[in-house]
Amino acid sequence: MNPVSPVSPVSPVSPVSPVSPVIDLNADLGEGFGRWRLTEDEQLLSIVTSANVACGFHAGDATTMRRVCALAAERGVRIGAQVSYRDLAGFGRRAMDVPADELAAEVAYQIGALEVFARAAGAGVAYVKPHGALYNRIVHDEEQAAAVVDGVLLAGPLPVLGLPGSRFLEVAAKAGLPVVPEAFADRAYTDEGTLVPRTREGAVVTDPSAVVERSLGLARDSQVTSLDGRRITVRARSLCLHGDTPGAVDLARRVRARLLDSGIEVAAFA
Amino acid sequence: MNPVSPVSPVSPVSPVSPVSPVIDLNADLGEGFGRWRLTEDEQLLSIVTSANVACGFHAGDATTMRRVCALAAERGVRIGAQVSYRDLAGFGRRAMDVPADELAAEVAYQIGALEVFARAAGAGVAYVKPHGALYNRIVHDEEQAAAVVDGVLLAGPLPVLGLPGSRFLEVAAKAGLPVVPEAFADRAYTDEGTLVPRTREGAVVTDPSAVVERSLGLARDSQVTSLDGRRITVRARSLCLHGDTPGAVDLARRVRARLLDSGIEVAAFA
Amino acid sequence: MNPVSPVSPVSPVSPVSPVSPVIDLNADLGEGFGRWRLTEDEQLLSIVTSANVACGFHAGDATTMRRVCALAAERGVRIGAQVSYRDLAGFGRRAMDVPADELAAEVAYQIGALEVFARAAGAGVAYVKPHGALYNRIVHDEEQAAAVVDGVLLAGPLPVLGLPGSRFLEVAAKAGLPVVPEAFADRAYTDEGTLVPRTREGAVVTDPSAVVERSLGLARDSQVTSLDGRRITVRARSLCLHGDTPGAVDLARRVRARLLDSGIEVAAFA
Amino acid sequence: MNPVSPVSPVSPVSPVSPVSPVIDLNADLGEGFGRWRLTEDEQLLSIVTSANVACGFHAGDATTMRRVCALAAERGVRIGAQVSYRDLAGFGRRAMDVPADELAAEVAYQIGALEVFARAAGAGVAYVKPHGALYNRIVHDEEQAAAVVDGVLLAGPLPVLGLPGSRFLEVAAKAGLPVVPEAFADRAYTDEGTLVPRTREGAVVTDPSAVVERSLGLARDSQVTSLDGRRITVRARSLCLHGDTPGAVDLARRVRARLLDSGIEVAAFA
Repeated sequence: MNPVSPVSPVSPVSPVSPVSPVIDLNADLGEGFGRWRLTEDEQLLSIVTSANVACGFHAGDATTMRRVCALAAERGVRIGAQVSYRDLAGFGRRAMDVPADELAAEVAYQIGALEVFARAAGAGVAYVKPHGALYNRIVHDEEQAAAVVDGVLLAGPLPVLGLPGSRFLEVAAKAGLPVVPEAFADRAYTDEGTLVPRTREGAVVTDPSAVVERSLGLARDSQVTSLDGRRITVRARSLCLHGDTPGAVDLARRVRARLLDSGIEVAAFA
Repeated sequence: MNPVSPVSPVSPVSPVSPVSPVIDLNADLGEGFGRWRLTEDEQLLSIVTSANVACGFHAGDATTMRRVCALAAERGVRIGAQVSYRDLAGFGRRAMDVPADELAAEVAYQIGALEVFARAAGAGVAYVKPHGALYNRIVHDEEQAAAVVDGVLLAGPLPVLGLPGSRFLEVAAKAGLPVVPEAFADRAYTDEGTLVPRTREGAVVTDPSAVVERSLGLARDSQVTSLDGRRITVRARSLCLHGDTPGAVDLARRVRARLLDSGIEVAAFA
Repeated sequence: MNPVSPVSPVSPVSPVSPVSPVIDLNADLGEGFGRWRLTEDEQLLSIVTSANVACGFHAGDATTMRRVCALAAERGVRIGAQVSYRDLAGFGRRAMDVPADELAAEVAYQIGALEVFARAAGAGVAYVKPHGALYNRIVHDEEQAAAVVDGVLLAGPLPVLGLPGSRFLEVAAKAGLPVVPEAFADRAYTDEGTLVPRTREGAVVTDPSAVVERSLGLARDSQVTSLDGRRITVRARSLCLHGDTPGAVDLARRVRARLLDSGIEVAAFA
Repeated sequence: MNPVSPVSPVSPVSPVSPVSPVIDLNADLGEGFGRWRLTEDEQLLSIVTSANVACGFHAGDATTMRRVCALAAERGVRIGAQVSYRDLAGFGRRAMDVPADELAAEVAYQIGALEVFARAAGAGVAYVKPHGALYNRIVHDEEQAAAVVDGVLLAGPLPVLGLPGSRFLEVAAKAGLPVVPEAFADRAYTDEGTLVPRTREGAVVTDPSAVVERSLGLARDSQVTSLDGRRITVRARSLCLHGDTPGAVDLARRVRARLLDSGIEVAAFA
């Protein structure tokens, strides 16, 4: 029904696929603001295939947006709008009870602003990925999920990137938007395939080698080991990498190399 | 060279033209923010032909932008991006020494954000008009004028609305942008055709009947009486009306009626 | 235990007290921002005895804060800090999941900023009243209630104004802060003495005469008729009046006159 | 006339003073915002004697202000309010034409906000130092200089830290405020003792050893070598160190050590 299916090219029955598996690598970029820098934009743009560019509501001033779009386009990296609650002071990490019409309009506003810089770089906004507290909220909150989808429809339509099984991807798919499920190699999963909340011990995988191997498992086999030690299936078309901590860029580079060495195709979704 | 000439259709030699004169009426709209309202958007959209919609930097939240664009499109009113310094606290009325690259990017950002709502309403951003302190600054400041033009080129290109004789219109014309000169029926002019600074006595014409007659003179004859009593020529394709003070809407309505009664065509620029 | 008791001077058993009842009238003031005005500050300062002054996070620029404090001090009106979530775009009406330490610091920041203008006017910040979504949230949310109290302790200590029975007043009292319960003459009450949610029909009392009489009942007898028609007891040391809608100032004036005519003393809490 | 004299304890005639010279070391601190960090607050607080704490207008959220004040008080470092134009996006580096009454109120607002955290830490705001574009503007702009002084008087009075010979220190001294002149060991001076504009080559001294020696010369002898090679006199009671670039903390530590080794007393102004 939608061009980018939530079903991965790897069959759920057999983890070894006859066709070469393909995975997208996405990361948050341009998350500075004015004088402040955060993400290693230059380096990450040599590693990822999709750039979630901050649009000014949690981070990302206009000059940074322009610069990151230009560089992304130059390197053939897809540009996505990383939309957020309006909350610079909280970096978009504080859930907000925004009325649906306001949220939809704010999402559209951010996409439109980014579109200018993507277009000026010879590209365009290729997808939308919510940020931080908004991302987490619309895993479960149907009203806000629908508001974000409304915003994407207002400005787009465009594919959306999100958590498999989330209300957000569900509502988006119903609205006819292409949905792109993503996985996190550095986050622990429950047996049910959901993310272990950050408040629980072991929620974040800190061992770099483990992250590399989990990336490979997710990309090649759509499988990962849960926190309780079971093999579970997580179908994702994209892997989310991080670039705002020391060592993060090196790790991202290792993940990419491991995937390529293993014959995985690293490419943006269509 | 550009589709919208700074030379009015009325010949500078003969104030009475054989062809019917045509004038655009523009006003600032959507200048509330969140809980706060300022401009009489609904009523003004029945009077003007061009709506300068605030884009969020001096006023204008996303919800308001969406609403004003929808209403403007519905009534056939042209949508323009009223771009500003980033200064909500000062309503964009405080000149700022913004570096050229930042200013250009900020202008483009605002246009892009508005474009989403204009497009969703079945229209598009048809022109750009700087607001407040930025408008005044680029009458003389060549660097900032060029930065605004760069921003319009980044997001556009689009026609620009401004003061005849300003650096801004000059730089814009050189860059190939259509330029639309505007006049102010409620502002006093010097013998040289420039606006009398607001700090001087008599700078603002407060008598409503005088404003109506000056509007007619400007639209029909490209002429107005200067503060010192001389007939001077001011060629404008648009008249700027105001809608943020008591009585302003009534006055705008009277101006429009007087123009129509006198056989002036009231229409947006091409 | 605390100087301003949540128990009104009128006995719960007998509605007619031998001592003259006394009531404070409070209203939100200074809720403009920059170019935008909202509340009728000048007029309300002739009516109320306590001014909840916006501190810049949901409304209230520094110039307005200074002006309102000067006028309040001149008229002998108590100055209170109306603290809010940091949310100009949403006027502080959108609940936010702010971590406790951030919320406490933000509350203290606002009180400190206001203190400068109160002191410069020869007065001081006399109490704290949370605004909008924060006010509503801490009726039930113990963590945020405690964070607001921490902020008041950081900056104060100071009396706090809030809803009787709220977590906020409970936590504040435990922390040793004087608590001042307030009532709303224009809001419907349940049989249990809580406010009827705005989403329910009849939640707001719109008939001015009814509001006036309910004010008298609340001030003199600590009693009001619930939405279901029962006489209930609501003990309040302050009545909250509104000043941001047409007719609100007139209504506030009528309430004050009715109270005075009935022998109620209108005075700020100690 | 004021307790902190702009005349250094070293006599202008003889650079070698019989009394031990004393110098204050100040640095900008707390210049992160929300998720973003900039200055090495922890380390600098072991080096400087005066901390210019950002107050939220160009940087510095409430949580950071609280943390830096607590640490400064713990280490006996003086807390100063680093006041700025309201310009987070531009880090306060863009000059703004703020009307005098707005600027005065905004300065007072920032001082008041900081005062809460300084007081909660058992200290108080001990002085005021303008930041960035405001600092530079009031070297020459008498109206804004007077507005800042008005703001300091509103909130204080408090000593002010600034450039010797600036309009700011002049207006402040006339208003009865203690004035503290400061010098920059890493900035080139003209023969007249003013700072070489950053646009000119050689404006910034990049050799660490040179900075260390210039610090000593300024502190001990009130002398420094101008860009054109002449020995000039610069009387300063404080040296401004920087902490937002790699190596800056090490350099600051070297400066402090050199001063102490040379018998200079490193101490805050009275």
